[in-house]
Amino acid sequence: MKYKEKIFSDSSDEEPILTPYKDTGKSKETSSSREEPVAPNDDELPIINLQSETEEADDPVIVHHRHVRPASLYESLDYEICENTLWKADYKRRSQKLIFRKDLARWLIFLVIGIITALIACTINIAIDTFSEMKYGFLAKSVDENLHNGNLYVPYLYWILTSIIPVGLGAALVTYLEPVAAGSGIPQVKCYLNGVKVPRIVRIKTLVVKAIGVVTSVIGGLAGGKEGPMIHSGAVVAAGISQGKSTTFVKDFRVFRYFRDDHEKRDFVLGGASAGVASAFGAPIGGVLFSLEEAASFWNQSLIWRILVSSTISSFTLNVVLSAYYGQTDFTITGLFNLGKFDELPYKYFEIPIFVLMGICGGLLGAFWNTTNSRFHLFRARYIKPGWGKILEAMAVSLLGVSIACTMMYVINDCRTLGKDPTSYPVKLFCGDNEYNAVAALWFQTPESTAKALFHDPPESHQILTVAIFVVVYYFLSCLTFGLNVSLGIFIPTVLVGAAWGRLVSMVLQHMCPTATFLHPGKYALIGAAAQMGGVLRMTISLTVILLETTGVDSTFAFPLIITLITGKFVGDFFNEGIYDIVIRINHVPILPWEPPLKYRSLKASNIMSSPVVCVKMREKANYIIDILKRYTYNGFPVVEDVQGNDRSKGRVCGIILRSQLTVILKESLYEEKKRLWQDQISIETFRNEYPRYPTIDKFELHLDKHDYTVNFDIFMNPSPVRVGEDDSVARIFQTFRALGLRHMIVVDNENRVRGMLTRVDFIFKED
Amino acid sequence: MKYKEKIFSDSSDEEPILTPYKDTGKSKETSSSREEPVAPNDDELPIINLQSETEEADDPVIVHHRHVRPASLYESLDYEICENTLWKADYKRRSQKLIFRKDLARWLIFLVIGIITALIACTINIAIDTFSEMKYGFLAKSVDENLHNGNLYVPYLYWILTSIIPVGLGAALVTYLEPVAAGSGIPQVKCYLNGVKVPRIVRIKTLVVKAIGVVTSVIGGLAGGKEGPMIHSGAVVAAGISQGKSTTFVKDFRVFRYFRDDHEKRDFVLGGASAGVASAFGAPIGGVLFSLEEAASFWNQSLIWRILVSSTISSFTLNVVLSAYYGQTDFTITGLFNLGKFDELPYKYFEIPIFVLMGICGGLLGAFWNTTNSRFHLFRARYIKPGWGKILEAMAVSLLGVSIACTMMYVINDCRTLGKDPTSYPVKLFCGDNEYNAVAALWFQTPESTAKALFHDPPESHQILTVAIFVVVYYFLSCLTFGLNVSLGIFIPTVLVGAAWGRLVSMVLQHMCPTATFLHPGKYALIGAAAQMGGVLRMTISLTVILLETTGVDSTFAFPLIITLITGKFVGDFFNEGIYDIVIRINHVPILPWEPPLKYRSLKASNIMSSPVVCVKMREKANYIIDILKRYTYNGFPVVEDVQGNDRSKGRVCGIILRSQLTVILKESLYEEKKRLWQDQISIETFRNEYPRYPTIDKFELHLDKHDYTVNFDIFMNPSPVRVGEDDSVARIFQTFRALGLRHMIVVDNENRVRGMLTRVDFIFKED
Repeated sequence: MKYKEKIFSDSSDEEPILTPYKDTGKSKETSSSREEPVAPNDDELPIINLQSETEEADDPVIVHHRHVRPASLYESLDYEICENTLWKADYKRRSQKLIFRKDLARWLIFLVIGIITALIACTINIAIDTFSEMKYGFLAKSVDENLHNGNLYVPYLYWILTSIIPVGLGAALVTYLEPVAAGSGIPQVKCYLNGVKVPRIVRIKTLVVKAIGVVTSVIGGLAGGKEGPMIHSGAVVAAGISQGKSTTFVKDFRVFRYFRDDHEKRDFVLGGASAGVASAFGAPIGGVLFSLEEAASFWNQSLIWRILVSSTISSFTLNVVLSAYYGQTDFTITGLFNLGKFDELPYKYFEIPIFVLMGICGGLLGAFWNTTNSRFHLFRARYIKPGWGKILEAMAVSLLGVSIACTMMYVINDCRTLGKDPTSYPVKLFCGDNEYNAVAALWFQTPESTAKALFHDPPESHQILTVAIFVVVYYFLSCLTFGLNVSLGIFIPTVLVGAAWGRLVSMVLQHMCPTATFLHPGKYALIGAAAQMGGVLRMTISLTVILLETTGVDSTFAFPLIITLITGKFVGDFFNEGIYDIVIRINHVPILPWEPPLKYRSLKASNIMSSPVVCVKMREKANYIIDILKRYTYNGFPVVEDVQGNDRSKGRVCGIILRSQLTVILKESLYEEKKRLWQDQISIETFRNEYPRYPTIDKFELHLDKHDYTVNFDIFMNPSPVRVGEDDSVARIFQTFRALGLRHMIVVDNENRVRGMLTRVDFIFKED
Repeated sequence: MKYKEKIFSDSSDEEPILTPYKDTGKSKETSSSREEPVAPNDDELPIINLQSETEEADDPVIVHHRHVRPASLYESLDYEICENTLWKADYKRRSQKLIFRKDLARWLIFLVIGIITALIACTINIAIDTFSEMKYGFLAKSVDENLHNGNLYVPYLYWILTSIIPVGLGAALVTYLEPVAAGSGIPQVKCYLNGVKVPRIVRIKTLVVKAIGVVTSVIGGLAGGKEGPMIHSGAVVAAGISQGKSTTFVKDFRVFRYFRDDHEKRDFVLGGASAGVASAFGAPIGGVLFSLEEAASFWNQSLIWRILVSSTISSFTLNVVLSAYYGQTDFTITGLFNLGKFDELPYKYFEIPIFVLMGICGGLLGAFWNTTNSRFHLFRARYIKPGWGKILEAMAVSLLGVSIACTMMYVINDCRTLGKDPTSYPVKLFCGDNEYNAVAALWFQTPESTAKALFHDPPESHQILTVAIFVVVYYFLSCLTFGLNVSLGIFIPTVLVGAAWGRLVSMVLQHMCPTATFLHPGKYALIGAAAQMGGVLRMTISLTVILLETTGVDSTFAFPLIITLITGKFVGDFFNEGIYDIVIRINHVPILPWEPPLKYRSLKASNIMSSPVVCVKMREKANYIIDILKRYTYNGFPVVEDVQGNDRSKGRVCGIILRSQLTVILKESLYEEKKRLWQDQISIETFRNEYPRYPTIDKFELHLDKHDYTVNFDIFMNPSPVRVGEDDSVARIFQTFRALGLRHMIVVDNENRVRGMLTRVDFIFKED
């Protein structure tokens, strides 16, 4: 308490500074416990009015806002460019040549993103293909060898081993090395594009774990695909390349420094995600549309352009590399996920009601799938907490899958003539000499190949019973699998389940009307897949385009596809959200919806804003800055002027300054043992060098003789923060907030004085 | 001057009202001529400070802003919802049922838009097909009949007659009935979607003239297509249906009144344009992307959805109707513009440089085309002013086309064996018995069929000379045609020219390397078309998708297409803008670019704003309102409070009120012979009934005993206008303005007092 005298100094010029952090324990306790009466001397508190307003406050929203909810674990990205004096100086210094060079660099980076994303996709694909063929070839041989001596448990054991070992490995990697690499990656990318900073989501380490993880999971035979992780990989590649430095390798290449802000980075990530879609599905237009559906608010034409280029290059590169690898010269390999090209798919008018019915069916199945999956999620979150538990769980699900598959193969005797078998390694099992087991054909390959088989196998390739049981089993297996602590996507199992029941529909109909010629099983499999995807994923436009691009069907067939997808989505939306949104909600990520929540519609800004607000004066004592930084977790502080006395919240807003800027300023001026703040030495480069991991305040220990120093925010603050009136409707300001990708919005009264603050979490309705 | 006494009344409660319009002639003159010194009594002037500030003003930008430029001929649409008290009351009154009904109505309208757009497209298409076949069948017969007796001038005359009569008819319709129906319609729709109110652009009369006009032009054989007009038709259909009333027929169906504002209407028009693209090209995804490229700033997911549905339904309806008409049952007719389906188009690596070169070539040709066309435009604007001149010009161009075609047919003797002829009516002319004239085959059909022929004719269908001359002729003919006062699109001629020179390239290459097998002429025609379109139109993404959907090529071929299109656009952009943007610029439409003009980048709001601003007080005298409405053409007036004396511009902003609102209020309260303003009787319906053609102020004659009446704006004004600080950077506020689709932005100082106003025209850099 040795600074007490200073605190109570009443020199009006040199305003009393505030007690350092270690001394404020008591006043902090006061403000939260409300036991001690407030001292009338407001000077003791850094934010005047905080105390009294909290006491008065009968609106619980204010208190809840930022500290209680888990949502606040996530920070927002800042899409707004902080056009402060430093930025303007830098902007003016830029010659025409530099602008051109920056533009060129931007194009180059988008090109490279496309190429590298495709190369990673190729590597993953080739690895999966090679290992899968080894695995299933070995298993098929083992079955044949052990069939006659009755030791069928031997291939069963082999299968179990070749499944749970890679799955366990992948789960261990994800669990212990990089937990954020779990799952599909699409929800995380979606959050990032929405403007939420998901920690570690775009690090190289995440990419490596994700890539190895997805290979092991698919080889392990889990019901999942590699497409989601591919999209995530694209995003990581984009973030990595565009920044010219890597945190994982602690290496700064000192290039592309002008791209070191959230704004630029997010544009690149958009391109990366889109390149990921392009290389995963061979669908460049689908990739652009994927980015659109997820981040439409931040679009402009030149960005669309660059994204298109990066996805085109990506799918082209993949095409070239895979064609070369597989020794083909006619570029027929367009994506990792290839459902095979359909020839013309004619349909009749009277089939449209069938398609709609299938859409409804898909919507119901999808909604039920989503609900069940989120139940599993909650169960896991509650009961499976330790790392080894998660690994064991993944291995158990793998074991379950193998066991069910073996039982099916053993019990159902669905024999078909060899010659039109869909696998590379047909299993004879109990079938005749020229036959193969159709059940084994479904299980003895990657899910992707099975989906392709269901689309393109000739009619009569399976018994109705086989497909029916397969549908039920795979439906629940995929539901159990998604959410395991492994790196795995949801796209392929959804397609597979949909294709299977779609094919089943055509088989049953054919059975009932044997003369009907229109019941092409592949067509119905495709419609089933569309219905299931509409029901589970709910991403309509990009999915339509991806399906069209992947299957190469005529645009005449676009109508049935779109109708089915839309019906599926509609029906599904009646019950719950899409699976990606469910994952996001379960993780309490404060993602901004497209429209403000219904209950917010008729409210005013003052109803939802957080207040009171911690403000800083234009010229502020270093000590006070350190104090508020240590005391609060806020990321932005309004800068005010015309302050009467110490009552900062009565000042007029003249700017906003971010926590990150404050820490950099403090580090440069005080921590670095400099005597005074040499503002000339701080340029915009200083801030860019620290991006994106700014120094934290915990490091700072202020010397006793330095707490008088004053920082002038004039050149650092953003002089034109977005301000809204306290009576402005939430619908309107939400639109602004979303369209501009803001992080902070200052609510001001009619005289431009701070009334409150709006951040992302304030816009998300809390149901409790 | 009989109100003088009142003006100088100094009762502080009842503020002095202002002189009515007829009395202000002098003060108006004063303010513009600056000859008379300003009276110290500010009360005499409606806007205090106007005088003095104009005197002080040394920034010429202020004065120039809104009255001088032709840009101000166009008004802005208001995408912002005016959430005033009336709106809120209406919003709260809405039950869940009404919300549901409105949502349902919205979906229904999108469906109906799709269907009707397709039906109109079908009608136009069938009309063109029928008449064209009649015309060219008759001409072919006439050629054959008159060949032997040497009277070849007879078919020539017939051809001239069957060309210039419909062209003249169409030109007369456009010129005298609805001039806004001229041209492609895409630039106008683009402007509308950008937020500019182009007068009469979405009226039914415009649609009728456009439809008949495009039929006559195509039959007349002008070098143009029907796709642009189709898109325009979709927009008109959307605007018409969604409003439930028609100005052309002076009929109000009293339905869908809740959709009567710019915001809702523009969303529907977006759907209509997209349905137009879908039915014109059979490209539903392309339609969605077209809307995206033109109006991306106003997107949200549910809108994307509805647009997708409307375009899908549209292309499906077209498919069904045309299939039924042509007696096909397998739905192969997917769009009006059908380039015919390509089978797989393989390409080799070494062809990519050729494609890029062709892209460069297309960019150069396109840029030159655009420049030449805009020269023609300027020439026309200067010299061809009377209506009959425009009609004669169209007929002359038609005559020129026919004459050139005849000369070509007469001079070039390109005979091919019958059997693979591309027209329905092969012309023998001077060829042998089993032959037809290949030149006549190019000319004796609609441009669309010729384009299709160039894509799909087998190799060796033409001499190199034939195609070469055709390219040159059609290039200049199409350049001469676009801009005539007829209703005609630019899409098909561009495709045709591109396809022709693309095919020419392959023919020349084949001639040089007779052994090369990869030189598929259709492939090169497609690449040529893409290059030419990239060079002329510059709409990359939607064009790519439209081309892919129209030609049904594999997505493997997407890469060459995209590369070519992008190269074409890049090279073209180096020289000038796309043709649509050129048309827009020539017409001085204040369309907002994607980014603020380069010179604005480092400016502040105060540098570009218009000031002084005409403000109104919260409670304002009717007389004053009428006065400012008559005196100024501004469309929005800031509402201020805390006014000291009469100096309105010193008040704090508390809202904004639109000219349209003011006129409706005046009409309802004063004009309707009501004694007082019965605010209870005015609801939001009152305003909706007047939309979109609000009463004009010229009607009002204020009774002598009514100029004391006061209007309280409290419930009418938009209480949360978008305000920006005077020091805010233009780049940032531009982004807000564009993203939110605003019409007005109030610039305030640090105390929330009006400093200036920003509207669309202020954001458009004036080069003078």
